[in-house]
Amino acid sequence: MEIIVAKKILNANDQIAQANRARFDASRVLAVNLLGSPGAGKTTLLEAVLPGLAKTRKIAVVEGDLATSRDAERIEAIGVPSMQINTAGGCHLDANMVSRAIGTFELDSLDLVVIENVGNLVCTAGFDLGEHLRVVVLSVTEGDDKIEKYPPMFQKADALVLSKMDLLPHTNFQVERMRENLQRLSSQARLFPLSVQTGDGIDAFVDWLESAMRRDRRDR
Amino acid sequence: MEIIVAKKILNANDQIAQANRARFDASRVLAVNLLGSPGAGKTTLLEAVLPGLAKTRKIAVVEGDLATSRDAERIEAIGVPSMQINTAGGCHLDANMVSRAIGTFELDSLDLVVIENVGNLVCTAGFDLGEHLRVVVLSVTEGDDKIEKYPPMFQKADALVLSKMDLLPHTNFQVERMRENLQRLSSQARLFPLSVQTGDGIDAFVDWLESAMRRDRRDR
Repeated sequence: MEIIVAKKILNANDQIAQANRARFDASRVLAVNLLGSPGAGKTTLLEAVLPGLAKTRKIAVVEGDLATSRDAERIEAIGVPSMQINTAGGCHLDANMVSRAIGTFELDSLDLVVIENVGNLVCTAGFDLGEHLRVVVLSVTEGDDKIEKYPPMFQKADALVLSKMDLLPHTNFQVERMRENLQRLSSQARLFPLSVQTGDGIDAFVDWLESAMRRDRRDR
Repeated sequence: MEIIVAKKILNANDQIAQANRARFDASRVLAVNLLGSPGAGKTTLLEAVLPGLAKTRKIAVVEGDLATSRDAERIEAIGVPSMQINTAGGCHLDANMVSRAIGTFELDSLDLVVIENVGNLVCTAGFDLGEHLRVVVLSVTEGDDKIEKYPPMFQKADALVLSKMDLLPHTNFQVERMRENLQRLSSQARLFPLSVQTGDGIDAFVDWLESAMRRDRRDR
């Protein structure tokens, strides 16, 4: 009985997700679902990446959190419009929440919408929001065993940002071990080791996002 | 409709949790639910704390993960019996899983059972497993805004272990800000800043666990 209900919810979510994607496509907007554990550095990554991108691209951000509008305020502070969703205890965003949030944007005027999901390495993996790309942020301080222990999240990633690389010398994180685990999972994820503190690796990730936006416009 | 089903599941969980607690009580075992984000340092904390405790106390560990038996192997490697639960994608342990796991232990011969939950700062907060104490591990690398952003987890904590304190100088984590947020939440959690790398703060946490075991035996 519970399984039937769960399936019904998932299907409803997938239908709304497809409608979201159609709206993004009609407006030629690239939509990115940004995922990872609490404190992996998702908002900090946006603070590092968006100001440069915003010079030539129109961007908006949807922020998902259980409580507070702290992350949306951080994004507004760098001059990028954002919309905070509070899930009131919910462990992930769903397509319906995102549908309501993007209804407040002028999608036709945008190039990129980033949806920063609730910090959660499990539940968020199961819900399509209508995005084109999934970017997972994993910090080196979380340990190099996370791909084996939380496979669904990494299985579906298009990019894996390995954050806080400046802290690597203080950890026992082995980048090669993580890379092998990613390959073993048959994940297609592009790997971007970077540090917001030093700036190392940021350009490669920005280039990849730029290229995805160009590809996105060409395809439609 | 979905809400009714969710309530039914919670009630069933609570009933089994109460039965688990009664089994722990009858065997005079202290049961601890160990929670936190992926990579907060839960297993590493156990590796640091259990060998000393195991000299005078009989301990067993239940490990919860989506996949792998890696954590249970790490616990067995320090000479403490452990039982791995794989949730097959599930984002938290529930009381029924724990009931089956503790059925494999000789509870009467034990003093302490630690249940290390799935790494998740959201879902695990909502499920009573039959524990006496909840210990939440938060690493300083996760950021000092986590209490405001994930309140249910911290609201119900009996102890908050602030881990990876050796990395504090490399972060912008403000311990005082976090402490104020904890007080604002009216959480009764005892705070244990510590570092497994340097050993600082470990003793205070071990003393608290020892004292909880003594209190636990006195009460019954």
